[in-house]
Amino acid sequence: MILYYSPGACSLADHIALEEAGRKFALAKVDLKTHKLEDGRSYLDINPKGYVPALQFDDGQVLTENIAILTFIADNYPGLMAPGQFGRYRLLEKLAFISTEIHKSFAPIFNPAATEEEKATAAGKVRKRLDEISTQLTGPYLFGEHATVADFYLFVMLLWAEKNKIEIPKSLKTLAEHIRARPTVEIALRQEGLA
Amino acid sequence: MILYYSPGACSLADHIALEEAGRKFALAKVDLKTHKLEDGRSYLDINPKGYVPALQFDDGQVLTENIAILTFIADNYPGLMAPGQFGRYRLLEKLAFISTEIHKSFAPIFNPAATEEEKATAAGKVRKRLDEISTQLTGPYLFGEHATVADFYLFVMLLWAEKNKIEIPKSLKTLAEHIRARPTVEIALRQEGLA
Repeated sequence: MILYYSPGACSLADHIALEEAGRKFALAKVDLKTHKLEDGRSYLDINPKGYVPALQFDDGQVLTENIAILTFIADNYPGLMAPGQFGRYRLLEKLAFISTEIHKSFAPIFNPAATEEEKATAAGKVRKRLDEISTQLTGPYLFGEHATVADFYLFVMLLWAEKNKIEIPKSLKTLAEHIRARPTVEIALRQEGLA
Repeated sequence: MILYYSPGACSLADHIALEEAGRKFALAKVDLKTHKLEDGRSYLDINPKGYVPALQFDDGQVLTENIAILTFIADNYPGLMAPGQFGRYRLLEKLAFISTEIHKSFAPIFNPAATEEEKATAAGKVRKRLDEISTQLTGPYLFGEHATVADFYLFVMLLWAEKNKIEIPKSLKTLAEHIRARPTVEIALRQEGLA
């Protein structure tokens, strides 16, 4: 299994999840500007959409889209799934919110062509969405006492928020500290050159 | 079961899917500007995020986010699921792409405060993403001979594209015609006042 990633991109959530799951996997770094892999091959031959993450299985099949990959990992490592009979839908609900409402709201902040005003509007949207999700925690994590793949995705969003000086609600700061303290996260950050 | 919807919004995908599944359900129309239901109650008491769709179960539980609701319907009505052992991840992959790359790209087009230039840029992005997904059909539908919940979500995006004069690739025009011809779609459109 190969995880295609870019350091600190949303693929970090999958990286942490695979470490937590104890899965054997290889990492392949993608240059998102040139769409090249470190060995010179084109990433577009793996994922024509050009963005990360992508997960390649041993039979060559490639799965793309963070929501799909994180759900695949949680299904195969139930320790990272939300609890209860309805857990898989509650997990998807959170993954979809993080992806469509938080992650996507960052776009102008990462766009060199965006104006300062556009970036400020985007930062305001991210803060509003972080406020919303901060009220939904049922323990130190989104689903109580145990971290799920959704917490790892949220953690990456909080790293982005911190880096861009977006105010983070207190409960989410605590969540980020809990996740940051996990040995798997230390490993993943180090492997991505971020520790 | 109650589906909270707004006419022609992305909740139309869930509406069609529930009709296809033959599920007994009620419809509750949401005014997205005032966040009021037709009986005067506040929709924010059902879904504090304010947007549609939301699906309320008979025990009162509410599930939000289109990806989560469509997956729930497909899991419970396998005729709407993508085929094969890996089908549920392939379905999620398409739902995530439609939601994060197509649906979200429409945002400036629906924003009265956006400039004409911003709207044109957005329309270009939508067209690019429609081009991408148009090459991935494996039959008349995304996953071959049978429509899945992802086709219904894509169908709503194509209605939006048509309404906003965004060019639609030929294979997707055909897909939209196939879906438009389904009796359940006729029912759903009529119930939403769109037929």
